[in-house]
Amino acid sequence: MKLYDLELSGNCYKVRLLAAFLGVPLELIAVDLMNGEQKRPEFLKLNLLGQVPVLVEGDLVLRDSQAILVYLARRYGGGDWLPSEAADMARITPWVSTAANEIARGPADARLHDKFGYPIDVEQARAKAHHILEIIDQQLSGRAWLELSRPTIADIACFPYVALAPEGGVSLATYPNVKAWIGRIQALPRFVTMPGIG
Amino acid sequence: MKLYDLELSGNCYKVRLLAAFLGVPLELIAVDLMNGEQKRPEFLKLNLLGQVPVLVEGDLVLRDSQAILVYLARRYGGGDWLPSEAADMARITPWVSTAANEIARGPADARLHDKFGYPIDVEQARAKAHHILEIIDQQLSGRAWLELSRPTIADIACFPYVALAPEGGVSLATYPNVKAWIGRIQALPRFVTMPGIG
Repeated sequence: MKLYDLELSGNCYKVRLLAAFLGVPLELIAVDLMNGEQKRPEFLKLNLLGQVPVLVEGDLVLRDSQAILVYLARRYGGGDWLPSEAADMARITPWVSTAANEIARGPADARLHDKFGYPIDVEQARAKAHHILEIIDQQLSGRAWLELSRPTIADIACFPYVALAPEGGVSLATYPNVKAWIGRIQALPRFVTMPGIG
Repeated sequence: MKLYDLELSGNCYKVRLLAAFLGVPLELIAVDLMNGEQKRPEFLKLNLLGQVPVLVEGDLVLRDSQAILVYLARRYGGGDWLPSEAADMARITPWVSTAANEIARGPADARLHDKFGYPIDVEQARAKAHHILEIIDQQLSGRAWLELSRPTIADIACFPYVALAPEGGVSLATYPNVKAWIGRIQALPRFVTMPGIG
């Protein structure tokens, strides 16, 4: 299975992390985003949106980190990381959406500004980051994981850009439950890290 | 089944639309967003994020429009609107993420600015809207639906804020495939509309 990848992308990292937990080997293909490789015709054939990650397995070409998590969990996780029963699945998927929306617009955007110079309203992104961090901290009050009694793709989807928030000038100091949860994820067997995650 | 709802929300509408297609009756509970009802403690018990829609069915309390589509499709759709097989599911879920991310940041944000006065960089939102509309128009070239050979929650998730784009100053005139697709959705049996959709 091939993953078109960028080492410093939290979205690529979340795929590498779940693959590691599942014991699924990935052939990583580094995409040269600095030189615009993701906007060239060959790459746009894989993903019209011109974004990494893209997963290729046989005939399947799959874009979007959240969708790749859903696929790997359903295909290789046997219900552990994403239950198939509708009501259990329904507890996980809102957090996958939160990763695609509130976390992307918050800590991920603030980091894009600070670390990669994207023209983003960083104060607004930091305010959104703190808003969603407060909510996640509240959700994790008295809970080990975002949903269910075990780690799921809810945790995997949200983890990277929450853990990387300090790279966007967003301190985690006032979110003790978030910090404890980060530690629990890092302590899981087969955990792999990426640059910027302590 | 209760839906905490706002008539003018495209996110609430996508839930009402799928429920109509599935023949699932909803008890609509209007949330008074103009008066901040969604930020009051009673509502925050249903959704920490203080957003509509929220679906309540028995003990299940489910936030996030995309997650509600996944739930309704899995629970009541028998695979029609969201296949359960991993590779087929994998073709649908990227568009559900696109609805939560690129469409939310594009046409939905532009409409929030123009119609409801949100303090949003509307030129940036319109530029993002045209970028994702070009991609959707390209995806729909020679295809009736975003994925598979039938309508799925990929179409339902993307439809409302694409069809409402003109309310944010984003013309659909140059996207013929998008316009034809909107017409096909409107022609489906049991289609229901909302204000602002032709």
